[in-house]
Amino acid sequence: MKVELICTGEEVLSGQIIDSNAAWFANTLMNEGLELQRKTTVGDRMEDLISIFRERSQQADVILVNGGLGPTSDDLSAQAAAKAMGVELVEDAGWREHLESWYVKRGRKMPESNYKQCLLPKEAVLVDNPVGSAPGFRIKLNQAWLFFTPGVPSEFKRMVEEQFLPFINESFGQTEPTRLQKLVTIGYGESTIADQLNKLSIPEGITLGYRPSAPHVEIKVFARGDNAIAAMPAYVEQVKSILGTALVTDSFPSIAEAVHTLLQASGKTLSIAESCTGGMLTSQLVEFPGSSDYLLQGLVTYANDAKEKILGVSHATLEEHGAVSLETAIEMATGARASLDSDFALSTTGIAGPDGGTEEKPVGLVLIALCDRTTCWVQAIKLANRNRSLVRVMSCAVALDMLRRRLLDETPIVDYPFIPRMEDQIITLD
Amino acid sequence: MKVELICTGEEVLSGQIIDSNAAWFANTLMNEGLELQRKTTVGDRMEDLISIFRERSQQADVILVNGGLGPTSDDLSAQAAAKAMGVELVEDAGWREHLESWYVKRGRKMPESNYKQCLLPKEAVLVDNPVGSAPGFRIKLNQAWLFFTPGVPSEFKRMVEEQFLPFINESFGQTEPTRLQKLVTIGYGESTIADQLNKLSIPEGITLGYRPSAPHVEIKVFARGDNAIAAMPAYVEQVKSILGTALVTDSFPSIAEAVHTLLQASGKTLSIAESCTGGMLTSQLVEFPGSSDYLLQGLVTYANDAKEKILGVSHATLEEHGAVSLETAIEMATGARASLDSDFALSTTGIAGPDGGTEEKPVGLVLIALCDRTTCWVQAIKLANRNRSLVRVMSCAVALDMLRRRLLDETPIVDYPFIPRMEDQIITLD
Repeated sequence: MKVELICTGEEVLSGQIIDSNAAWFANTLMNEGLELQRKTTVGDRMEDLISIFRERSQQADVILVNGGLGPTSDDLSAQAAAKAMGVELVEDAGWREHLESWYVKRGRKMPESNYKQCLLPKEAVLVDNPVGSAPGFRIKLNQAWLFFTPGVPSEFKRMVEEQFLPFINESFGQTEPTRLQKLVTIGYGESTIADQLNKLSIPEGITLGYRPSAPHVEIKVFARGDNAIAAMPAYVEQVKSILGTALVTDSFPSIAEAVHTLLQASGKTLSIAESCTGGMLTSQLVEFPGSSDYLLQGLVTYANDAKEKILGVSHATLEEHGAVSLETAIEMATGARASLDSDFALSTTGIAGPDGGTEEKPVGLVLIALCDRTTCWVQAIKLANRNRSLVRVMSCAVALDMLRRRLLDETPIVDYPFIPRMEDQIITLD
Repeated sequence: MKVELICTGEEVLSGQIIDSNAAWFANTLMNEGLELQRKTTVGDRMEDLISIFRERSQQADVILVNGGLGPTSDDLSAQAAAKAMGVELVEDAGWREHLESWYVKRGRKMPESNYKQCLLPKEAVLVDNPVGSAPGFRIKLNQAWLFFTPGVPSEFKRMVEEQFLPFINESFGQTEPTRLQKLVTIGYGESTIADQLNKLSIPEGITLGYRPSAPHVEIKVFARGDNAIAAMPAYVEQVKSILGTALVTDSFPSIAEAVHTLLQASGKTLSIAESCTGGMLTSQLVEFPGSSDYLLQGLVTYANDAKEKILGVSHATLEEHGAVSLETAIEMATGARASLDSDFALSTTGIAGPDGGTEEKPVGLVLIALCDRTTCWVQAIKLANRNRSLVRVMSCAVALDMLRRRLLDETPIVDYPFIPRMEDQIITLD
């Protein structure tokens, strides 16, 4: 079965809107064991729409069309579909009634422009939209089914999940059973992981995908068919053993979410002291509802005065070792922990660049400390050849991974691929 | 002139990589007064590549092809181009020499796989790549020029700017003079701004574009031709007067960068105390190199204990008014400012949701305070119908805008469209 996607709209074509529906759709197809063959984006011109519908419907079996179902004059998908088929637009009385009663319930009169959304090509099959005013519809043109969906992401996604996927499963036969396992890594680049994993012989019916999204590269192991599904656990174990410490979670979409969930479950509390990561570490946890259960404070102490006054780092330590030092990282973490007597504290201090590096302390040098009530683990890593933003992102990932390992009773400091460690210490606190 | 884009690669088609090159390219074209007609994405299959090159070259005048020039076996663009033309691949001796000497200089031998990158379709014109190993090239096929570029964004962008744009300007005649003015807004949604601005009569040769990127909607006013350029200043003034307080900068890509630049120029210092924004406000400024010049500290005081201990918010205030109150916001700001005697301080406290709201203090209620040595401005805004992330993003934007206006000696608290203000106070500090 050849599946294609047609995205419509000037704002998508001109790059004013990043085409996130397309990426989501391709991913969703992949999770179902289906492959997208081609994606075409066109603007809002009637002749472009008609010609692309005619052209692609001679090649593909199923075409999902996204966008152009709104109430305004530049929403032309239904009209273009009718013209491509050589039929008229006719009003769908059921949808009109549905829309009118929606407005009546809210004590409003339906705007004139919404009537346009009740017009579908003759012989089109209406596809319900439970969350918006634009109905979807499907038509048969040449050899293809064209399935029209609205551009609003929430409406689009529901229609794909609840109607498009069941429709193609019904029309093109039940696809084979499939299974997907995601592995989230740090340290490796996409091509380096691929080189490593290509050394494994891959069972038939299993495919690998990579999705880089700093600080992670997510690896998708996808199995199609009963044999492949049976072979999957052993294969995934082999993959994991190659990944080693680079694997930071196989159960969550990100390391931050893994830490959030583990911390929430543990009932323990956390304080954070940041310098070079500048609030990013704290902000990554605050992103999750419920983070206030465990996160007591996140103190971004950029100035030395702030490190002394807020965290109680000693003046002598700053004088003697500097702000970017193992000693300062330790005192930042222990100071942040002690201030509200939290169970854990994390600290970061380093040189994010692009300026401020020296021979002894180059750009990309970052100190990261984790402490609980009895022990402090601290390490110096060197994030060379990364820009300011990536130095901060990777530093947060390593800090979170130290805490993740501690929460799992593993050793918090490990060797990651491509993140050289310059120094480390484990200090017993009294 | 009809310009099309063809993106190649399974990872782009399958949504594993968001197609940022395409958006950048469409934007860059628009800045030059050119329009992208169609964008097609295909995978790495040889027959798909050949057929799309043949097909689109019968319709377009210029086609930019992105991706597939790397050294590995799934990089097929050059080979597919040769097959589409019906010619052989031949080695470009100059590029081979260039690559070999690059490796020699670094004391390394060129890997076998790189030789593939020296093979171009016969009669192709090589396009220099000053920053990578894959040369670009262009070929004439049917009625179109196909211009092949590497997928690596930094290489792609340089090639477009330094070679593609000059090439089409030369080949298709100097385009008319153009001018672009960007206006960055907060508060309005894209379609609401469009509705507002559509009421203005727009001078011939001027077009408007919108790029939503939370918390901003960026408006692009684009003029093509001398008459339009002459009419632009007056038109932009009309647009600005409609935007009113929604316009937060016409000189910077974001409000955070505007504040960063103004603060750095002012020589003044800033402390930040955050609750619901959870480090996002601090992090947005730390993103800019040199922010350590003015940013002394960013204190994320999530727990009430932290507000008392770190910021000196009084226990009585928290007891009487609660953590989400004008009074607490004021004490957070004045406490953060006083602790290191910075020139300014900002504070945020609110209910980001999805839980934790009450009738009196609903989800989306956020208190924001700005203080200097003599005055504190505080306001309560209500960010209804926005998710947790957007509540935080919009709160940061309003906080930064208060400081931006203060730095420009404007009044810090203003009425924004679609950001209702529940309460505000101006307090003279003693």
